[in-house]
Amino acid sequence: MTAKAQGRTPGGYLDRQRAARLMAALGVEAIVLVQPESILYATGAFAGVATLWRRAGAAAVLVPADPASPLAAVVGDLQAAGFREASGIEDVRSHPIWVETTAADPRDGSIVEDILAFDRTRQPGFQRPATFDPALMLTALRDILGERGLDTARLGLELGFVPVADMHLFETALPQVRWADASPLVARLRMIKQRAEIEALRIAAELTTSGLKHALASLHEGIDAQAVGALWRGKVEEEAGRLQLRQSLSSWAYIAVGPDGFAPGGPARRGDVVKIDVGAVVGGYSADVARTAVIGRASSAQRQIHDALRSALDAALAALRPGRPLGEAHQAATKAMQAAGFASFSRGHFGHSVGASVFSEEWPFISSGCEVLLEPDMVIAVEAPYYVRGVGGFIIEDQFLVTPQGLELMSPLPRDLLEIVD
Amino acid sequence: MTAKAQGRTPGGYLDRQRAARLMAALGVEAIVLVQPESILYATGAFAGVATLWRRAGAAAVLVPADPASPLAAVVGDLQAAGFREASGIEDVRSHPIWVETTAADPRDGSIVEDILAFDRTRQPGFQRPATFDPALMLTALRDILGERGLDTARLGLELGFVPVADMHLFETALPQVRWADASPLVARLRMIKQRAEIEALRIAAELTTSGLKHALASLHEGIDAQAVGALWRGKVEEEAGRLQLRQSLSSWAYIAVGPDGFAPGGPARRGDVVKIDVGAVVGGYSADVARTAVIGRASSAQRQIHDALRSALDAALAALRPGRPLGEAHQAATKAMQAAGFASFSRGHFGHSVGASVFSEEWPFISSGCEVLLEPDMVIAVEAPYYVRGVGGFIIEDQFLVTPQGLELMSPLPRDLLEIVD
Repeated sequence: MTAKAQGRTPGGYLDRQRAARLMAALGVEAIVLVQPESILYATGAFAGVATLWRRAGAAAVLVPADPASPLAAVVGDLQAAGFREASGIEDVRSHPIWVETTAADPRDGSIVEDILAFDRTRQPGFQRPATFDPALMLTALRDILGERGLDTARLGLELGFVPVADMHLFETALPQVRWADASPLVARLRMIKQRAEIEALRIAAELTTSGLKHALASLHEGIDAQAVGALWRGKVEEEAGRLQLRQSLSSWAYIAVGPDGFAPGGPARRGDVVKIDVGAVVGGYSADVARTAVIGRASSAQRQIHDALRSALDAALAALRPGRPLGEAHQAATKAMQAAGFASFSRGHFGHSVGASVFSEEWPFISSGCEVLLEPDMVIAVEAPYYVRGVGGFIIEDQFLVTPQGLELMSPLPRDLLEIVD
Repeated sequence: MTAKAQGRTPGGYLDRQRAARLMAALGVEAIVLVQPESILYATGAFAGVATLWRRAGAAAVLVPADPASPLAAVVGDLQAAGFREASGIEDVRSHPIWVETTAADPRDGSIVEDILAFDRTRQPGFQRPATFDPALMLTALRDILGERGLDTARLGLELGFVPVADMHLFETALPQVRWADASPLVARLRMIKQRAEIEALRIAAELTTSGLKHALASLHEGIDAQAVGALWRGKVEEEAGRLQLRQSLSSWAYIAVGPDGFAPGGPARRGDVVKIDVGAVVGGYSADVARTAVIGRASSAQRQIHDALRSALDAALAALRPGRPLGEAHQAATKAMQAAGFASFSRGHFGHSVGASVFSEEWPFISSGCEVLLEPDMVIAVEAPYYVRGVGGFIIEDQFLVTPQGLELMSPLPRDLLEIVD
């Protein structure tokens, strides 16, 4: 889908005014995005197969602090046309990667001559690199920065992504740039979702919830974690087909059957806990929803743990109000666990932002002392998990869109401890 | 499965003599592995959920150059017991991560008292970090290095993985260590596969081949890339169920329908090329196999391109002999394309190692001038792809185990351009 067809401003998902404020606070004139997930966030476009090794130097997107100055990008030549169309960015330059591409008119008589004619603009001795050549990418980036008067500026770079072994490439190609770590800035940018991102996360949550409902309804004595996962994924794929999903689809699942609580486990015996923590990933955007069931009637210990988690989740949800710091929800949930008698309970976070990240959990976290304020257009997963070896793994987790009024549930499912009885 | 049950030496998959030779060449007394895929390679065990953000400081494995000195590891507390069991490493230390875990005896009367009793060894004020605390991980690593007399040594660290923003953590915790980049050394180690890895790659290739055979047999006019992918994945999952696969299973697919050659495309019209490049990933180990079909009879242009690729693949395979440099196969394949008339054809590589990597393609590559020698127990994918916009995407790719005698095919499928005719 093109940027226009998605109803976006060319130049991607980015709120340029907000980006400008964050860049002013960091004291940089622009940021250079190199992490593939950040490029997807800022442009709505895939940065290309050369980024899949997660080394720096395969692609870059320039975001100037001045909101009037357009974005520019350098990507591998295989993805350049698609990147231009999907992002709406006009200035997309390319560097040759290992994949050989050409073009021909199939109605022509000779395919060989057609291809030779298309390739005739290649420099003599043109040879593709084994994978990609970061020096070529950085030469194109240097040209862009030079044309914008940014090649001697202080610029932000995602130093939480660039490997130590690759940093010298940036320093050699752009010796006068002073680099600042932009990873925290980019995380803060990415925590606010744009319309198309919210839509992807909404579809991902719908698929996840459908699959979870199906898997829970299909539980029985004798089932193992692998089979629960297959039931879940099967329903997700079926629903994606029914919705005629055009975006990429993948999924992940942490399923535990039995008293260990974290290992996959099974076949399930009467009394076993089944924990299902899953996410469908739509166009790179991952949902995160979880529920717990018991094969047969829950024991009093199982019920006591689940009731405590339910009270912790309720307390966290009540504390998650726009304009309030996330740390308050952590405190409320911890207090609820203590009030339920679990005085030693200590969990690092009771939820997190969701988005297009390398892991299903992204910053910010509902953690102790977290001062980040809840803001509209954040999408968050709120969770209350407890892994009790000998009894089982327990979790209740839901996904929400933050609106000016509060939390809007994206994963409607009963929150009770489900008992699987004949 | 435990290390012993897999018939491995405790301490993992690693050939310690070979590792010692490579470390001597780099001039280091030990390497500290931090990339999750490298830890899986060296130990056979998952380094834990805290590594999924791909920041450094979540886990580390010490591999001393002295083969008599055992491995040691630091992982998050959630995975410590499982890591010890799966790796066979005795010295596994842990640091607390965000996930709250405890234990109880479900037969006891009071779950609350049981948990409190289990948690009583916690330090007063124990509080889990929001995610993980690299300083705690590095404190444990420093203790290990100190006990081994390695805390003032020259050590290898994967600087192709450690982000610039995380390097100061290592420098602060271990101020007297001199760090050398071990990423190339680790890539060279990982290119030789151990028995359990070959087994995982064999199963992955079997699943992939079954799925590919099924998808090819199900092609028809009107099908789109998404539907081809669903057919492929469905068969992979069915086969995994039939084999009662116990390892984790995921998959990836690059499918193109129609004249663009790289975009997903479809619904397929008569004359359209369908390119299917896919991999099942078993326990982290990814297969890589691909075939091409035409809906209806192939045009002479389509046949000419595919015939040329077939000759290039044959030439590469003939040149891939144990003891010979990979670059010779690149040269042979390129010459074959030129001999077929495609004089401007330039591809960066005609194949690559496969394994448990962040991308399906891992070093070394069958690239121009590559001096790496083909060795027994390498597992490689050999491919001849050509993306001709206006005509379609073409590829033939197979996976092989290298034996002392030569290449052993892991993906038995006809290599012809498949014509889908009624």
